[in-house]
Amino acid sequence: MKVAQRRQNLREALIAAAERAIAAQGLGALRARALADEVGCAVGAIYNVVADLDELILLVNLRTLAALEEALAATSSREATTYPPAAIARLVRLSIVYTDFAAANTQRWRALFEHRLPAGHTAPEWYVKEQMRLFSYVEAPLAVLQPDADAKRLALLARSLVSAVHGIVMLGLEEKLYTLPLASLREQVTMMVSAIGRGLAGR
Amino acid sequence: MKVAQRRQNLREALIAAAERAIAAQGLGALRARALADEVGCAVGAIYNVVADLDELILLVNLRTLAALEEALAATSSREATTYPPAAIARLVRLSIVYTDFAAANTQRWRALFEHRLPAGHTAPEWYVKEQMRLFSYVEAPLAVLQPDADAKRLALLARSLVSAVHGIVMLGLEEKLYTLPLASLREQVTMMVSAIGRGLAGR
Repeated sequence: MKVAQRRQNLREALIAAAERAIAAQGLGALRARALADEVGCAVGAIYNVVADLDELILLVNLRTLAALEEALAATSSREATTYPPAAIARLVRLSIVYTDFAAANTQRWRALFEHRLPAGHTAPEWYVKEQMRLFSYVEAPLAVLQPDADAKRLALLARSLVSAVHGIVMLGLEEKLYTLPLASLREQVTMMVSAIGRGLAGR
Repeated sequence: MKVAQRRQNLREALIAAAERAIAAQGLGALRARALADEVGCAVGAIYNVVADLDELILLVNLRTLAALEEALAATSSREATTYPPAAIARLVRLSIVYTDFAAANTQRWRALFEHRLPAGHTAPEWYVKEQMRLFSYVEAPLAVLQPDADAKRLALLARSLVSAVHGIVMLGLEEKLYTLPLASLREQVTMMVSAIGRGLAGR
């Protein structure tokens, strides 16, 4: 086996091991020593295939974003509609997919938001691009509700809507205020996203 | 000075020191040793006046909630209105106060949500009560928009709305996606809360 291939295999084994560790115990429990033990390499060998644990976490998060995108893409066709109620229904469906994904993959989903790069570092372009791609799912139905909105406003609306849904899901999955069953969480998301949709369409 | 008074003074000095530490560096930087040094007591003396650091954090968070409530109460009268546009305007104002409070007191505000009690522990009743009181600010205008909603539905609507605003503010104050200036954050909150208000009123 060529060196490049061995490196690639180790890299993939590390990403998979990190993903399992995050899914099981959350981001805070990730340790280089435990990952090395699991894939059967020396701790130092990790840094031959990734720059540091931060890069490894970004690679895991990229897979989480891809899984989320797959779920969003599967929920319904992206075919064009110009009928506002259909656009609102599509926004609600996408939001429920997001809710269910977060509830089913809570630790991996949390890692998307909990991971902070060291001060002075920003996420690499390939990562930001994948994040931004997810916003495009809600931009199309939002454009139906606000046909006069320009690209900048649509981007802001998309970001606001996604953040609003995220807030509901995040606080719903915390035990901070009081724990909600998934059905109640879905009900909240449906109520809010429908209201947002009607409110935006009605302008 | 009586013992009870000395204990009370130490307790208050510790809460104030913990609040300054959280405001300056965030929850993660809180250390019993540094607090003891600052107030001039032995580390062990801390545990004569609070059960543990978790209780101390809850006491700081209670003050943060009280400061937030003061800001919400100051924004406008709580006098009754039955006019939906006035109720929507009130929801927007309250949301902007929340946004500004979070932007001006980011670390203390974050501590409200980042602090997790040890497994098996739930927040004491006095803390939960203060949290719930904040929801009452949005319930009154929501009741104007949905006059047929019962108390249970109003509570769910209030929670959803607050969570949605929280999500927008939280992701806006992160440097995770891309940093937003405060004006843009306020614009997002205004757009979403107005849309929610119109959407709820229009049913």
